[in-house]
Amino acid sequence: MANVLETKAPGGMAGEQVRVLQETLVELIDLSLQAKQAHWNVVGPTFKPLHEFLDELTDQYREWYDLVAERLTAIGISPDGRITTVSAATPLAQLPAGQLEAGAVIAAFDERVTLVAGRVRDRAEAIGDGDLATQDLLIEILRGIEKQRWMIRAQRA
Amino acid sequence: MANVLETKAPGGMAGEQVRVLQETLVELIDLSLQAKQAHWNVVGPTFKPLHEFLDELTDQYREWYDLVAERLTAIGISPDGRITTVSAATPLAQLPAGQLEAGAVIAAFDERVTLVAGRVRDRAEAIGDGDLATQDLLIEILRGIEKQRWMIRAQRA
Amino acid sequence: MANVLETKAPGGMAGEQVRVLQETLVELIDLSLQAKQAHWNVVGPTFKPLHEFLDELTDQYREWYDLVAERLTAIGISPDGRITTVSAATPLAQLPAGQLEAGAVIAAFDERVTLVAGRVRDRAEAIGDGDLATQDLLIEILRGIEKQRWMIRAQRA
Amino acid sequence: MANVLETKAPGGMAGEQVRVLQETLVELIDLSLQAKQAHWNVVGPTFKPLHEFLDELTDQYREWYDLVAERLTAIGISPDGRITTVSAATPLAQLPAGQLEAGAVIAAFDERVTLVAGRVRDRAEAIGDGDLATQDLLIEILRGIEKQRWMIRAQRA
Amino acid sequence: MANVLETKAPGGMAGEQVRVLQETLVELIDLSLQAKQAHWNVVGPTFKPLHEFLDELTDQYREWYDLVAERLTAIGISPDGRITTVSAATPLAQLPAGQLEAGAVIAAFDERVTLVAGRVRDRAEAIGDGDLATQDLLIEILRGIEKQRWMIRAQRA
Amino acid sequence: MANVLETKAPGGMAGEQVRVLQETLVELIDLSLQAKQAHWNVVGPTFKPLHEFLDELTDQYREWYDLVAERLTAIGISPDGRITTVSAATPLAQLPAGQLEAGAVIAAFDERVTLVAGRVRDRAEAIGDGDLATQDLLIEILRGIEKQRWMIRAQRA
Amino acid sequence: MANVLETKAPGGMAGEQVRVLQETLVELIDLSLQAKQAHWNVVGPTFKPLHEFLDELTDQYREWYDLVAERLTAIGISPDGRITTVSAATPLAQLPAGQLEAGAVIAAFDERVTLVAGRVRDRAEAIGDGDLATQDLLIEILRGIEKQRWMIRAQRA
Amino acid sequence: MANVLETKAPGGMAGEQVRVLQETLVELIDLSLQAKQAHWNVVGPTFKPLHEFLDELTDQYREWYDLVAERLTAIGISPDGRITTVSAATPLAQLPAGQLEAGAVIAAFDERVTLVAGRVRDRAEAIGDGDLATQDLLIEILRGIEKQRWMIRAQRA
Amino acid sequence: MANVLETKAPGGMAGEQVRVLQETLVELIDLSLQAKQAHWNVVGPTFKPLHEFLDELTDQYREWYDLVAERLTAIGISPDGRITTVSAATPLAQLPAGQLEAGAVIAAFDERVTLVAGRVRDRAEAIGDGDLATQDLLIEILRGIEKQRWMIRAQRA
Amino acid sequence: MANVLETKAPGGMAGEQVRVLQETLVELIDLSLQAKQAHWNVVGPTFKPLHEFLDELTDQYREWYDLVAERLTAIGISPDGRITTVSAATPLAQLPAGQLEAGAVIAAFDERVTLVAGRVRDRAEAIGDGDLATQDLLIEILRGIEKQRWMIRAQRA
Amino acid sequence: MANVLETKAPGGMAGEQVRVLQETLVELIDLSLQAKQAHWNVVGPTFKPLHEFLDELTDQYREWYDLVAERLTAIGISPDGRITTVSAATPLAQLPAGQLEAGAVIAAFDERVTLVAGRVRDRAEAIGDGDLATQDLLIEILRGIEKQRWMIRAQRA
Amino acid sequence: MANVLETKAPGGMAGEQVRVLQETLVELIDLSLQAKQAHWNVVGPTFKPLHEFLDELTDQYREWYDLVAERLTAIGISPDGRITTVSAATPLAQLPAGQLEAGAVIAAFDERVTLVAGRVRDRAEAIGDGDLATQDLLIEILRGIEKQRWMIRAQRA
Repeated sequence: MANVLETKAPGGMAGEQVRVLQETLVELIDLSLQAKQAHWNVVGPTFKPLHEFLDELTDQYREWYDLVAERLTAIGISPDGRITTVSAATPLAQLPAGQLEAGAVIAAFDERVTLVAGRVRDRAEAIGDGDLATQDLLIEILRGIEKQRWMIRAQRA
Repeated sequence: MANVLETKAPGGMAGEQVRVLQETLVELIDLSLQAKQAHWNVVGPTFKPLHEFLDELTDQYREWYDLVAERLTAIGISPDGRITTVSAATPLAQLPAGQLEAGAVIAAFDERVTLVAGRVRDRAEAIGDGDLATQDLLIEILRGIEKQRWMIRAQRA
Repeated sequence: MANVLETKAPGGMAGEQVRVLQETLVELIDLSLQAKQAHWNVVGPTFKPLHEFLDELTDQYREWYDLVAERLTAIGISPDGRITTVSAATPLAQLPAGQLEAGAVIAAFDERVTLVAGRVRDRAEAIGDGDLATQDLLIEILRGIEKQRWMIRAQRA
Repeated sequence: MANVLETKAPGGMAGEQVRVLQETLVELIDLSLQAKQAHWNVVGPTFKPLHEFLDELTDQYREWYDLVAERLTAIGISPDGRITTVSAATPLAQLPAGQLEAGAVIAAFDERVTLVAGRVRDRAEAIGDGDLATQDLLIEILRGIEKQRWMIRAQRA
Repeated sequence: MANVLETKAPGGMAGEQVRVLQETLVELIDLSLQAKQAHWNVVGPTFKPLHEFLDELTDQYREWYDLVAERLTAIGISPDGRITTVSAATPLAQLPAGQLEAGAVIAAFDERVTLVAGRVRDRAEAIGDGDLATQDLLIEILRGIEKQRWMIRAQRA
Repeated sequence: MANVLETKAPGGMAGEQVRVLQETLVELIDLSLQAKQAHWNVVGPTFKPLHEFLDELTDQYREWYDLVAERLTAIGISPDGRITTVSAATPLAQLPAGQLEAGAVIAAFDERVTLVAGRVRDRAEAIGDGDLATQDLLIEILRGIEKQRWMIRAQRA
Repeated sequence: MANVLETKAPGGMAGEQVRVLQETLVELIDLSLQAKQAHWNVVGPTFKPLHEFLDELTDQYREWYDLVAERLTAIGISPDGRITTVSAATPLAQLPAGQLEAGAVIAAFDERVTLVAGRVRDRAEAIGDGDLATQDLLIEILRGIEKQRWMIRAQRA
Repeated sequence: MANVLETKAPGGMAGEQVRVLQETLVELIDLSLQAKQAHWNVVGPTFKPLHEFLDELTDQYREWYDLVAERLTAIGISPDGRITTVSAATPLAQLPAGQLEAGAVIAAFDERVTLVAGRVRDRAEAIGDGDLATQDLLIEILRGIEKQRWMIRAQRA
Repeated sequence: MANVLETKAPGGMAGEQVRVLQETLVELIDLSLQAKQAHWNVVGPTFKPLHEFLDELTDQYREWYDLVAERLTAIGISPDGRITTVSAATPLAQLPAGQLEAGAVIAAFDERVTLVAGRVRDRAEAIGDGDLATQDLLIEILRGIEKQRWMIRAQRA
Repeated sequence: MANVLETKAPGGMAGEQVRVLQETLVELIDLSLQAKQAHWNVVGPTFKPLHEFLDELTDQYREWYDLVAERLTAIGISPDGRITTVSAATPLAQLPAGQLEAGAVIAAFDERVTLVAGRVRDRAEAIGDGDLATQDLLIEILRGIEKQRWMIRAQRA
Repeated sequence: MANVLETKAPGGMAGEQVRVLQETLVELIDLSLQAKQAHWNVVGPTFKPLHEFLDELTDQYREWYDLVAERLTAIGISPDGRITTVSAATPLAQLPAGQLEAGAVIAAFDERVTLVAGRVRDRAEAIGDGDLATQDLLIEILRGIEKQRWMIRAQRA
Repeated sequence: MANVLETKAPGGMAGEQVRVLQETLVELIDLSLQAKQAHWNVVGPTFKPLHEFLDELTDQYREWYDLVAERLTAIGISPDGRITTVSAATPLAQLPAGQLEAGAVIAAFDERVTLVAGRVRDRAEAIGDGDLATQDLLIEILRGIEKQRWMIRAQRA
């Protein structure tokens, strides 16, 4: 079956578009599952608000990775969000198994969100105005993830 | 009556702003009516989901052309969405009269949406950062219309 | 492709049904775009309520022309709401380009709504009980458009 | 117990009113169950939208037969929607037992809906202005059922 | 101040239109207040459902008289819903002062609703197709008020 | 039938409670109908916002007079909101018949609302703490009606 | 056409599963129509709450029989909810034609609901843990229908 | 642990504030459970509306006792709504065990609601303007509970 | 008055059904009031989320005890949720009067919820398949209360 | 332009009314901005619930100061909520710039809310029954702000 | 840190509980991502309804795996939903990379859903009444997943 | 206390980011209060729509300044929205005290909105792609505020 989604031959930017989107997809899927893992395993006096905050994070990652995957389809590329792909390609360390103390959850997410925020910022700058729609999507995610970073850090104080 | 909306004298970009917005307005109004025409006339085993999909397209075009027209007013220019203007200025071929077989509807919208997506992308690039607000609106539409193109093409496979 | 929608051979009323519905379709599509054009271009101290009122008119015209087009399909006829058709067939004068002073908008819509109300009333009477469902739809629109006429005229006083 | 609902002695129209309403009640109850039967048993690549479309039909038949039954009560007559009555009086053929291929479902409903649409139209014409409220209800159903017929036929193409 | 709402010179039907609408307006306003009066004063073991049912009646009368008054404006006539006008012109007997036993409320509303239903039916027939929009509104009210009559009588049994 | 609602023998305050509540009931019912009358008959360039504002007034009067009537029942007294009672007892002048120019509507409601606001304030003061619940209801209405007075007067400027 | 829904060869329990689900389907469809029949025909001082209660019953039966039919499809069996099947197979006596006095409605539903509750309980016990999902559905219905029985009997007292 | 909620030293009114609020808290918690007890155990032809009415009472008592308890916290006092406290301190007679005939439920609630209404009225008067916020809350409850008394008595008639 | 709710003579299971349901009713009512008591009296840095969490507990206990009481009615038994009964029969220790430090609240609810979870589990096992509907209800509550236990314990860490 | 809002000459109370309302307006506007400032700058393990709690405070202050300002208009006085006025007239200390530790936020709001609660209480007492509507508004705010004080203090424990 | 969630020493069933829940967790997480992968990559004439159906599947899997993970916490065990764990432990074959033809998607999900349905059924039977709450959750998922299997197979026909 | 929010050392752009965001924050807070001030003090025949329009402006300013402040936190900077800061730093002239004639309100907001729109545009251009997320936020506000400018000017005509 021919690829029915193929668009006009993309220029030198094409490979770059695919790379930044596919990498972002992988990171956001992993983040969504890490937030769920922490949602279930966190313990401590602030359990309730943290448990709920982690669910808000999951919801945001799910919404964003859907946008990223559909942007890939919009430029004629198959997104790959399969669990084996994500597991192999994610740059993020996995959470330890078992119960997670609240402070450790905050620290772990500060580290992961800071890492991904930086990578998304770099990608948004790298894609530049070569693909304005893709850049706009990355900036939208960047705004959200940098806000998450603040909320996480504010809990460390 | 003097034009009460006139803003500070726009630079060389002004004519360009008007052109890209007015042309986009015309194309989106025409697309909204073409989607309605197909919504009513499509036939085939996939009638129901296609009939509903075409209505979603209409809703998006209507929302977008309202934004485009109001961006024109925001820069002090009267938008022209009159039917005679749209009819004369649209670059899109009209649908044939009468019943439309599902496959033909998909093919027709692939062609039209691809054309408009390309033109909107060119306009967003052309306007550059000369008018950031207008460019941002065009990118918003571009993201949406390129997603439509995928959904349409995915039905051709 | 055969017309899959064809119904039992309609009697002498059939051509009449088609005529009244297709003409009403054209007028309502044009009115919907004229109301949008005025929605964007109206100016004056009463701008805000008039701007919103014109959007209510647009919503009603869109809802009504969808009903009219689907009534055409219900009697086995393809509705023609293409922009070239509407542009060529509409009996309504177009609004002037550019800004529209509030009083002029009211006057223009009084004229257009009065014209269409009269034509819809004539059609409802003409179709008589030859096609009760079509007549019922025309009466529904007539009730609405005559109410619009009052609201418009009440603003002229 | 005396019939507390009895109204002023109805004229020659009375028997006719009862007949058209009771017959319509029977047909709509049967249609509602036939649509449910197909909703459960349909198979084919378009299963999902057809399954949902059949549920929309069921909802409409249920809403309409409630209106018809309550119109009977409004003219002082007991509606009879008992399953034995409906089973004995319905003019509609029953669907075959077991799985139903999508095309067969469409064909079966085209036949049944066309039959009932014709009967409702005849009744609306027959009742004439002898009972305007009953006629108005029949026309309301007629408009809906003729729209259903289009949607069904559009899937045959 | 000239009457800005005046429409094209109405034919012989005009006086009739005004009469049936103005009379209906008066009756419905009175009914709305009578239902409120009973809503407050009813007593008996079935107080709660009857108290709520009377409020539903009030809501329906209010909605209907708004439609009737706005139909008068739509044909260029000023509706007169002033309390002195209604008080002087209503054909309905007033409820007795003070507490109202549930059975007496039912009996009183059977009488009043039956009277108004009959008058509205006569008006709908009288107006015939001389003013289809007005007739359609009267039929809509007739369908509702005859349903009310059933619900009231069903409580007498 | 004995008055089942009778409460413990009220002291000297009882007659006063009844008077202030019954008088307020009458005034609010009349105001609700006067606001509707103006809602239908107002004309002028500000028709639309004024037409809607008058409907908001009607809604508030209806809500308030329901509270007042139910306060009467709560102290064991039958409220009398019959149209003949209201018509005979209202201290408010009736609006003139026919079209009402916007400015005249504003002036008329300024006068009526000012009158009723004053009377309600006097009643709230008169009832003092003799019946705290009744006083509280009157103050609630007073707060609302004095806000209405401002909104009306602000339109006179 | 082969049965596309066929599942892994069911053991001795299979015929039993089909029997209990198909019989429950028939009874619930019949109950839904009997509740509607009573909804329309009930008379008496408690008409309003009983009329509404019967509609709640109908809604519950409709929801339950949809679950039962879809459980049949889930185990690879075509549900048979055709009116002729239901009419022939129902173990329930039909309601008498015509008006139904409130007490008689309560008595009739006590009898029918008690009968079906007993049969559903027996089926839930019979199916045991041979098909846990089917048993769970039957218990869900049993909980609901035994609650209905209480509400019905509480009205007999 | 010191009482962190303590406010500025309250004057002579303080003990009174605590007493009226704590006593009201106890009565409203008991009423909420008595209304639930009756909600479950009432029988009779008016079961359905009474069953629902009793649930509305429960909802109101729950809402009110939350306000009362939080008013206690607002003046720096711990509310005591423990079941042993309520059971020991309530001035209300308990309902008899077992089924409750509708008339007996009405009579029992007339007695209890009348008692509590009187006590709340006395407390509102006693607290006077010594604590305006507490008095305002008591008046709010008084308005509600006196309305309940009417609704209950209206069912006795 | 005879017990109108009595069902078919229950077997040896009957007494057991009554016992497990009545005991569960008592415990859930007490828990609902204990959660409210803590909702008002808790203090500490995590006051806000704990205050809200305790209200969620109250809502769940209220919903569950309504289901339990109505299950008792469904098997023909009068539930006894009177405050004196609950106060005398509850196996739960009461909370101390006055302010409650957050950690103490968590500890107290861990103890109480663990106790009730164990008792409900034992009851669900004891009732076995002797009354599947009652067992199903107990399991539903068990799933919820064991989830509460986790959430409470997670806050201890 | 004359002051169109001026009411009947107010007595000696008038200056007092203006003073208490204008002062309350200033304090509530300042509180709304202080709560926002803290909403953005708070840090600590309880950041999330405190961040949300501060937003609830902002919403309440905004709602209350709108009521206060509109009460001023209702008595014919222009409210002054300009930032320079508020900045000059507020009796509240400003928060320190920069990050705010959670405990410090709680302490700061305890101080400010206690101060304003006291002033509002004094004003409500001072205005007495000289202007019942203004007093009622002040009491409404007092009830709310004293509840806030409890919630704040409960977090100090 | 000690495991704060540990419950009373579980019997021989404990290891089994953990196994069935953890395995189900892994399968449902994988299914949720496989459905998303197909949601993005499916092509064919039925793209639109299939694309939406796959999203409904994802939503169901997400809801179910949250319930399963929280059941693990409820029995004192840390759920492990980390992507590396899921990737290593899932028994499901991964979808091929790239575009997926509609028929292939249906076939792939028939296979996967059939596999998981069977495993969940086996687990529900294995856990028996050793842990009624866990069994109940597994049955709830089983009912849902067997319904999915029907819907998928119905599209193969 | 160390600043827990500090991010990676920002380049030369950092001071610029802070400046544009802090300045925008100040202007939007001031605009929100100026719009409220006008909302309360405007008078004239168009009072009602203008009063409501000014509230829409307030809502938008509040939403935007929240986004701006949270963008400051996202880059590790404390936003300063204290009333003294805003009062001292705002570049906007304050409205005159007292009543404001409608035309004067329009003129004042044209001036202020034009000023701020220009400053926000300059800031968006100045920040360039040095901080894409901040620029994107400024463009979002720019699009909104330029739309406001049109709506304001359209009322001047």
